[in-house]
Amino acid sequence: MTTIPGRPIHHITVWGFSRVPDFAQGLVRDLRVRWALEEAGIPYDVRLVESADRHSEAFRRISPFGKVPAIEADGSSLFESGAILCRIAEATDDLIPGDAAARAETLAWMFAALNTVEPPVDALLAMDLQHGGEDWVRQRRPAVVEQVRGQLRPLASRLDGRDYLAGAFSAADILMTTVLRLIRHTDLVAELPMVDRYLKRCEARPAFQAALSRQLADYARPAPVAA
Amino acid sequence: MTTIPGRPIHHITVWGFSRVPDFAQGLVRDLRVRWALEEAGIPYDVRLVESADRHSEAFRRISPFGKVPAIEADGSSLFESGAILCRIAEATDDLIPGDAAARAETLAWMFAALNTVEPPVDALLAMDLQHGGEDWVRQRRPAVVEQVRGQLRPLASRLDGRDYLAGAFSAADILMTTVLRLIRHTDLVAELPMVDRYLKRCEARPAFQAALSRQLADYARPAPVAA
Repeated sequence: MTTIPGRPIHHITVWGFSRVPDFAQGLVRDLRVRWALEEAGIPYDVRLVESADRHSEAFRRISPFGKVPAIEADGSSLFESGAILCRIAEATDDLIPGDAAARAETLAWMFAALNTVEPPVDALLAMDLQHGGEDWVRQRRPAVVEQVRGQLRPLASRLDGRDYLAGAFSAADILMTTVLRLIRHTDLVAELPMVDRYLKRCEARPAFQAALSRQLADYARPAPVAA
Repeated sequence: MTTIPGRPIHHITVWGFSRVPDFAQGLVRDLRVRWALEEAGIPYDVRLVESADRHSEAFRRISPFGKVPAIEADGSSLFESGAILCRIAEATDDLIPGDAAARAETLAWMFAALNTVEPPVDALLAMDLQHGGEDWVRQRRPAVVEQVRGQLRPLASRLDGRDYLAGAFSAADILMTTVLRLIRHTDLVAELPMVDRYLKRCEARPAFQAALSRQLADYARPAPVAA
């Protein structure tokens, strides 16, 4: 049996993209990591990679698939937002509960956000904001909208009588909120008052607002040197 | 900081589907959990739900999105294959390493399998085996094939000089193998010898073979009572 001790973070750098299209500003996934660090009260540096350099050998050493977020924490790099949130949770009491049963439930909702809700939501985002007007989108979009609704309805049931997905606010809410934001250009969340109120409740947190402001401000900075 | 103690599993039931189309036999995701339990040497019971009953209120209490796998372990239910593998890993030394850095790396590859590689792979599976011949598939398929290749190439780089994704065989390999199997009807894995050999190496493990045999045998059983 495995015992996992807590471990602090002494220094952390979060990688994001230096410039993204207007529609994507506020949606890029390094927001998840910034938000978690703000919730945990852990100071962080930011490094930005040009989207065009994401597949460079240098950046791939940090993030094998060329995606953000990635982090460097106390000399080790790490990729995948879910794994990074697990790492940050090791340094705080708040993001993932220590109690075994509550921890398992939180992990279930973290994976649900990333593996069950995000795929159709992300497919709809790509259809509308990257491929809008293409003939295949016209044919396929109604079915994908129904797939999204099929995941949002169980989410609404879960949130009936709950402020957050698994007890107190947790890493699962950070992931789910940032997934739901991907379809902010639609009315699909507004159709379900439980989900709509949940999204607004999470977005109202000061740590979210601080993370979002800083992410958006970074897009206004001059272009950085490539990774 | 959080400390997570190991905890044993005294009794576990794995939920799968009772009947699935021929093309899906050997691909349904309860295979991940069965395989992990075989690797860990933990005996398990199986309960099967009719696919048509997956959205029943009774089954939704176990699995909120109506998906398999779900488990009941020592009185608690849990859903999402990634979270279930984390739970099984708490009961064994083998599936996720105890060392903090190795653990973080394993989690990164677990999330990469589920959140980076699986979405385009699963989209291609749906196109070919559920929507084959539809006009939108004809238009969209070449781009999705390129998305899949875009994820498999970094995977091939990672596997250059490695037998498994993160040190010894781990939960990350269980997830990645079962994701790669979703496109067994294509040549995309065979195009990359590193990935092809990796898939065959993982599938050759006795625990995988035992889990697969038992899953396939279950489809030959008489239809069960609904959940």
